[in-house]
Amino acid sequence: MVKQERAARTRRSLIRAAAEVFADEGYVPASLTMISRRAGVSNGALHFHFVSKEALARAVEEEAAQKVRLITERCRLAGAVGLQLLVDATHTLMRSLDDDVIVRAGFELSGDISRPRGINLRREWRRWVEGELERVASDGGLADGVAPDDVASALMAATVGFEVLGARDDREWISRRTLTRFWELMLPAMAPRQAIGTLVTCGSCLSHGTDEVGVEEPV
Amino acid sequence: MVKQERAARTRRSLIRAAAEVFADEGYVPASLTMISRRAGVSNGALHFHFVSKEALARAVEEEAAQKVRLITERCRLAGAVGLQLLVDATHTLMRSLDDDVIVRAGFELSGDISRPRGINLRREWRRWVEGELERVASDGGLADGVAPDDVASALMAATVGFEVLGARDDREWISRRTLTRFWELMLPAMAPRQAIGTLVTCGSCLSHGTDEVGVEEPV
Repeated sequence: MVKQERAARTRRSLIRAAAEVFADEGYVPASLTMISRRAGVSNGALHFHFVSKEALARAVEEEAAQKVRLITERCRLAGAVGLQLLVDATHTLMRSLDDDVIVRAGFELSGDISRPRGINLRREWRRWVEGELERVASDGGLADGVAPDDVASALMAATVGFEVLGARDDREWISRRTLTRFWELMLPAMAPRQAIGTLVTCGSCLSHGTDEVGVEEPV
Repeated sequence: MVKQERAARTRRSLIRAAAEVFADEGYVPASLTMISRRAGVSNGALHFHFVSKEALARAVEEEAAQKVRLITERCRLAGAVGLQLLVDATHTLMRSLDDDVIVRAGFELSGDISRPRGINLRREWRRWVEGELERVASDGGLADGVAPDDVASALMAATVGFEVLGARDDREWISRRTLTRFWELMLPAMAPRQAIGTLVTCGSCLSHGTDEVGVEEPV
């Protein structure tokens, strides 16, 4: 039992180390030696858990995908509906990109042309955004004449843009401030006039006051 | 003279081949042999012109940056001003990303974490967008209460998102249709009410009717 726990812990630290190396260096330059060294385990222990770099990348993507599903689910459970759910989920996603290297690496990997397709996190995110906007539209939660597809496409492009710019250039791109101002600009174009004042652009399911509060990792 | 012309032609075909390989495979997996083979020249000829893969990447970026400057300049010369200039320039940029591999590779390279910083095309584009929006704002070309910085940030995120998604997933992201619908959605949030009807969301400096018309390459 103790042995199993140790094995599970090693596996987790390898996934985390792989995510750090993929996010910092990119997938192609990353080597198994870099990853095992970062995790503080031997190459042999790495190979016991993962047969290849690709297997590690898949594990990172799977965990990142679970976390992203949790983000959308938590915002829903916190009671957000309609456009507010979209606002909240984008805020929580950006915060995870900022403070959770597994989510960041998962998105990085799904944008890497040089690797065979695994779980594509961007595509999962897109499906969720599209599905939610269909629902918002059928509940009358969009302004007259605004097509849910157009909102989904603008929102998808902007979130991928924030993600990419935040990973490469400057974390300000994925800050709460930037996203709040984005929603302040966009909502009047999307929401029915009477709803605009009721929507919380800085995110209704987030703790307030600081950008640095972490999203808890699932145990 | 004939020899000089031949050398110039070889150099151009190497830059083009490098752009194709970088755009298709990514910078790290690209090899000088792939590039010389694609250009139809010997490795020796490649080394005569470029000392390294990095030197080729710089040449691609420099040419891409020139082309992007030309895009914004042409839209201005065609008479577009204010928000219309932004609409037109984004349309022309997306078309170039679709049909000009050098522009596409230039943007790819500027988003590649695994290479030392060269010309950063995204940063150049951002500076242009920010500068133009300052100008639009001081000419009264934005809706009341809309900050030029916020429009610049939303526009920058969306164009990078379209670029990245168009390169990886599906060219529909960089199509005229997608961008036109983006502007139709966004302009009411940005433009003064009286200006909205006068703005051409599908681009006023573009030839109409088809997505496939190419941007002429500079001779």
